[in-house]
Amino acid sequence: LITKKGLEIVGAIDSAPTKVGRDLGEIIGAEEPLGVVVTDDVERLFSEAKPDIAVHATSSFLKDVYLQLEEIIKHGVNVVSTCEELSYPYVSNKELAVKIDKLAKKFGVTVLGTGINPGFVMDTLPITLSSVCQEIRHIKVERVMDATDRRVPFQKKIGAGLTVEEFKEKIASKQITGHVGLEQSVAMIADALGWSLQAIELGAVEPVIAEKPVKSKAVNVDRGNVAGLRQSVRGIKGGKPVITLLFEAYVGAEEEYDSVTIEGVPNIHERISPCVHGDVATAAIIVNSIPKVINAE
Amino acid sequence: LITKKGLEIVGAIDSAPTKVGRDLGEIIGAEEPLGVVVTDDVERLFSEAKPDIAVHATSSFLKDVYLQLEEIIKHGVNVVSTCEELSYPYVSNKELAVKIDKLAKKFGVTVLGTGINPGFVMDTLPITLSSVCQEIRHIKVERVMDATDRRVPFQKKIGAGLTVEEFKEKIASKQITGHVGLEQSVAMIADALGWSLQAIELGAVEPVIAEKPVKSKAVNVDRGNVAGLRQSVRGIKGGKPVITLLFEAYVGAEEEYDSVTIEGVPNIHERISPCVHGDVATAAIIVNSIPKVINAE
Repeated sequence: LITKKGLEIVGAIDSAPTKVGRDLGEIIGAEEPLGVVVTDDVERLFSEAKPDIAVHATSSFLKDVYLQLEEIIKHGVNVVSTCEELSYPYVSNKELAVKIDKLAKKFGVTVLGTGINPGFVMDTLPITLSSVCQEIRHIKVERVMDATDRRVPFQKKIGAGLTVEEFKEKIASKQITGHVGLEQSVAMIADALGWSLQAIELGAVEPVIAEKPVKSKAVNVDRGNVAGLRQSVRGIKGGKPVITLLFEAYVGAEEEYDSVTIEGVPNIHERISPCVHGDVATAAIIVNSIPKVINAE
Repeated sequence: LITKKGLEIVGAIDSAPTKVGRDLGEIIGAEEPLGVVVTDDVERLFSEAKPDIAVHATSSFLKDVYLQLEEIIKHGVNVVSTCEELSYPYVSNKELAVKIDKLAKKFGVTVLGTGINPGFVMDTLPITLSSVCQEIRHIKVERVMDATDRRVPFQKKIGAGLTVEEFKEKIASKQITGHVGLEQSVAMIADALGWSLQAIELGAVEPVIAEKPVKSKAVNVDRGNVAGLRQSVRGIKGGKPVITLLFEAYVGAEEEYDSVTIEGVPNIHERISPCVHGDVATAAIIVNSIPKVINAE
């Protein structure tokens, strides 16, 4: 946001007491202060800043962000959000999705949930590639990430370094949720292709077991322990899977890539290698979306 | 068009005396007649057929299709066209582009030039991929096609089987024009990125010389003769190339692919292998564009 031409940061809000009252530039480690002080007072934020758009990054889940979105929309402000479930909210929570839609129309604003995944590699990109097909029988998308050099919270989020037992406990207690957005990506693809799916079958979050010891700066993974996780989802039509997404993220992956395989006329075999860097690319697509969101009807 | 749900072919026009008066299904080798007789009378075509959109496929060059487009637009009919220069007409012929734009607005229709290239692999796809970048220093797109199994007119168009001398003569006499659309793709990318280019430098059409004898069903290429052609184009900004497109099509290519390389933050290395089949995919993207064109403002 700082480096993008044509944008000005006019306000910032966070509930964390360690951030409120401090200059935003200082918090993010910018070279100099930005002259924007973080507040926790939403009324004050909007009345003083009068933004065209809010860049919203708090939680992955629609129910956790609904009231935040409502607040922003009611102030007549457009939203671009990293909330994974917002990328295709109708499959996340239809009731809340409809409420957001009505509210956005009432206040004349646009609300977009995007990011690299969901938002690009497993939905927008395969949808774009589908435009050159006369016929499509099956779409498979894989995202395989080596977590070795990713940020530590991400490594924790995928369970790297845990024993299988600990991993299962954290899954049961929802401390590990797996990748959020697979069902949204499937629904987005189906919608773009005009397909009515019978079901979206989300697989269990499974541990990727280290076959040899691997390590990152943050964790050591012994052989037989958890290096990360994998999860898949299938969109079913006519009793058969027509969309299959596979997500894997673990420490020590030998190759990382994003691939799209379309079985159809013609067949398409597409691959981005190494995979698109999630942190960098999510920031990019969020910022790049801003003019489109502001100018959308 | 025949197999796509929701579409009905209501008329057909061609100037070729061998086609006029015959059923369209018969001409294209469909299993049964389509009940659509080819006419060469444009007034009759539009008054009887009352189409929502015209699928236009005649010439690669804007000056050759302008009067045809004018005729269609003046009948209040939307257009999707394979005309390569129409994909970004402002770089082809600004005067005609402005006339088409004004006319389309006056008659409330939309005019799209698209296809696989230009229209997708060297413009829409890299533009789509650019959405995940914070910063872009250079975009390189390569399309390498093995012409061995392509239709014979395509093999002729790229000069396969000629001597180098014959190839140069056909270039000089414009019987071989190279790939049409490279400048359009560069301009499209630059426009999407908000870049003002100083120049678009189109390289000469060069022969790809066979290093060993190669052949297709249609042609035999002796060693030292022409297997096909290559051409490149560069978009210049700040004195340096920021967009580079390379097109190669020849009989006997060992690998065929479409690749996009973005130098930026992050770097993107993307590849479709084998390359997207031009004939099949152009038909697909033209037909898939129809609802968007009809519904566009």
